Amino acid sequence: MNETAGKAAPEDVGRGRVEALSDGVFAIVVTLLVLEIKVPHVAAHDSLAELGRALGALSPKFVSWVISFLTVCVIWLNHHRLLKLVSRIDHGLFWWNANLLLWTSFIPFPTALMGDYPTNRLAVSFYGLVMFLMALGFVLMRWHVIRHPDLLQEQVDPAGFRGATLRSVAMGPLAYAAGAGLAWVSGIAAFACYAAIALWFVFPHETRSRR
Amino acid sequence: MNETAGKAAPEDVGRGRVEALSDGVFAIVVTLLVLEIKVPHVAAHDSLAELGRALGALSPKFVSWVISFLTVCVIWLNHHRLLKLVSRIDHGLFWWNANLLLWTSFIPFPTALMGDYPTNRLAVSFYGLVMFLMALGFVLMRWHVIRHPDLLQEQVDPAGFRGATLRSVAMGPLAYAAGAGLAWVSGIAAFACYAAIALWFVFPHETRSRR
Amino acid sequence: MNETAGKAAPEDVGRGRVEALSDGVFAIVVTLLVLEIKVPHVAAHDSLAELGRALGALSPKFVSWVISFLTVCVIWLNHHRLLKLVSRIDHGLFWWNANLLLWTSFIPFPTALMGDYPTNRLAVSFYGLVMFLMALGFVLMRWHVIRHPDLLQEQVDPAGFRGATLRSVAMGPLAYAAGAGLAWVSGIAAFACYAAIALWFVFPHETRSRR
Amino acid sequence: MNETAGKAAPEDVGRGRVEALSDGVFAIVVTLLVLEIKVPHVAAHDSLAELGRALGALSPKFVSWVISFLTVCVIWLNHHRLLKLVSRIDHGLFWWNANLLLWTSFIPFPTALMGDYPTNRLAVSFYGLVMFLMALGFVLMRWHVIRHPDLLQEQVDPAGFRGATLRSVAMGPLAYAAGAGLAWVSGIAAFACYAAIALWFVFPHETRSRR
Repeated sequence: MNETAGKAAPEDVGRGRVEALSDGVFAIVVTLLVLEIKVPHVAAHDSLAELGRALGALSPKFVSWVISFLTVCVIWLNHHRLLKLVSRIDHGLFWWNANLLLWTSFIPFPTALMGDYPTNRLAVSFYGLVMFLMALGFVLMRWHVIRHPDLLQEQVDPAGFRGATLRSVAMGPLAYAAGAGLAWVSGIAAFACYAAIALWFVFPHETRSRR
Repeated sequence: MNETAGKAAPEDVGRGRVEALSDGVFAIVVTLLVLEIKVPHVAAHDSLAELGRALGALSPKFVSWVISFLTVCVIWLNHHRLLKLVSRIDHGLFWWNANLLLWTSFIPFPTALMGDYPTNRLAVSFYGLVMFLMALGFVLMRWHVIRHPDLLQEQVDPAGFRGATLRSVAMGPLAYAAGAGLAWVSGIAAFACYAAIALWFVFPHETRSRR
Repeated sequence: MNETAGKAAPEDVGRGRVEALSDGVFAIVVTLLVLEIKVPHVAAHDSLAELGRALGALSPKFVSWVISFLTVCVIWLNHHRLLKLVSRIDHGLFWWNANLLLWTSFIPFPTALMGDYPTNRLAVSFYGLVMFLMALGFVLMRWHVIRHPDLLQEQVDPAGFRGATLRSVAMGPLAYAAGAGLAWVSGIAAFACYAAIALWFVFPHETRSRR
Repeated sequence: MNETAGKAAPEDVGRGRVEALSDGVFAIVVTLLVLEIKVPHVAAHDSLAELGRALGALSPKFVSWVISFLTVCVIWLNHHRLLKLVSRIDHGLFWWNANLLLWTSFIPFPTALMGDYPTNRLAVSFYGLVMFLMALGFVLMRWHVIRHPDLLQEQVDPAGFRGATLRSVAMGPLAYAAGAGLAWVSGIAAFACYAAIALWFVFPHETRSRR
């Protein structure tokens, strides 16, 4: 149903089921993120002040959660756009997609770590490192398609695809590497960097609309 | 497959996959809610009285869970009805939908908080605040569609859609704001208010059947 | 796509999305059941005897898990068979389906409770009570369809459907009520009863193949 | 939609929904694996050395997680390939599929156990035992199809299917039984064996491409 007839090889994987698996992972990750925010324990059950302070103390967890939520939505969107350019999924592309899912499914751990230790530079930098590996996953998927141009939809221009891949290195792995480095100078700046990378994809702009 | 041909722009997002992502989040949230109800620890393993008392002490958790379960089903239903009126999903509508999913995926936290601190007015009011933001998410999605009427299915009357949007402000954000305010007067009344809002959507009535 | 054209009313809910929501809940419940089995803590990390004993002590948890796993698969199968007989889903059937999902999504709690307190009669009986309410959910869905025979697929014989509904009362709520009662006489017998109800659906037999 | 018309029996189960249930379980298992890696507790919140050491101590958990992640992807791939050869799913095949899902959904437990007790031979061997039962699940599914050759797609050669089933015994249950045995000699060797089995399926090679 979702396959482009005529080009499929017997080793190919059904695109519909790869999308279903990936969408499932994205939906679960995005929802599990909240489970890492535990209800605080407060001795005086009815005390507004105590519960208010306890909720306030969770604010780094809330910030980490919102950044990761937006980031997983961006991953979903970019994944969706990438697969729309691809006509079929061969054995190699399946495994590069699995590599992307590996790092995406790992996101709840660095999110909780950064939320629990917002002033620990290692924790904040570790978050950027995982995001770097996730973003590199996209580049590796694109690289596999460039080396196997028969995987591209016929109407897609290979040169334009290569150009978009180059740009995805800059606004992906490089940006997260910068954020992970920044964490050693200022934790707040690294938080802002991680948020800015996600927001860059939320707000439409020229570069992307020309694809 | 799910797209209405002819109107789609290259920046559009596949409606089938947005529905799959959203349905995934709704299904996961609705199921995760139970995970916040922990099996009680009872010293005398075979004591009926002790286990019975421990289960009874969980009753605010059970009530919170049922209210949130119904509420997420209502969100699913209203989301489904809204997307049926829309012919395609552009970049903006995708992100307003993501905003709705953000607050929906957060629901397990205020549900557990209200279940753990049913007599703390801040906890009960916080639940209403999150639901207010979730319900506002629907209004913002509808507002985006009103500003981009080409997103509406052709057979949908724009004036009727605007009227339904106005009504959705009343039976959505305003109702939850009232509940969140009520929590400062009486926790029980706020519980009842949150339950009543969900039940209003469960039982069919005139206003909605005329849409 | 999944709707039977011609009979659909504007208030109807898309069957494809109700199936997706329900399948999502079933898949998540079946997988979450394992999360209630916690890795035991053992002081001597390399001791085979200690870890062996700790795993052995988990055996009531393993048994509860397998019974609930099989039961959720049976729910999936019966839900699938019921929806195949239905041509469309109206507002009422959506909410009776939601009632079934409520009790199904609750299953991890009584499963963990029975696994933690296998010798406490209240815990073992509570499991049967939740399953009774779940099984009653199927009867209520079928009852709604009987009262609205236009929801039935045209090729389905209403008299046969009513007969199958009567039988579903016996091998559903009544069987679980018996198990919940048995728990007060013998916990082991109740475990066996819960397992037998699930296995009754696993192994094909005359009654069902005649539907 | 997904059924091959003409051969379906009334007792059959829709392939689309069995795939959806299975994909859901695979996606959830693959994502839940990370939840077993808990954020470490460190007294000195800003200490790089302490947090670094705590993360380093988690390395057996990371290794277990990556092995299980790859293994579940292999399960997904082999499940997908097997179902492509099958024209319809009867009552028996549904339950053999459920048996595979039972062991697959159990994987987070042995993964966490092996990660927590990497030097305990029972824990490392237990992992291999569960994987043995999971791999046996594939053989039992294939065996059911061999005994009911009308379940095979028409274009599939039954002799070739029987040959692939024999090979799946070697690179499945036998390989994991070897790993589980190896654990009693050397834990490291067993880890390597479990990883090698997964990697054998990741990298394409002659045997498989001849199917």
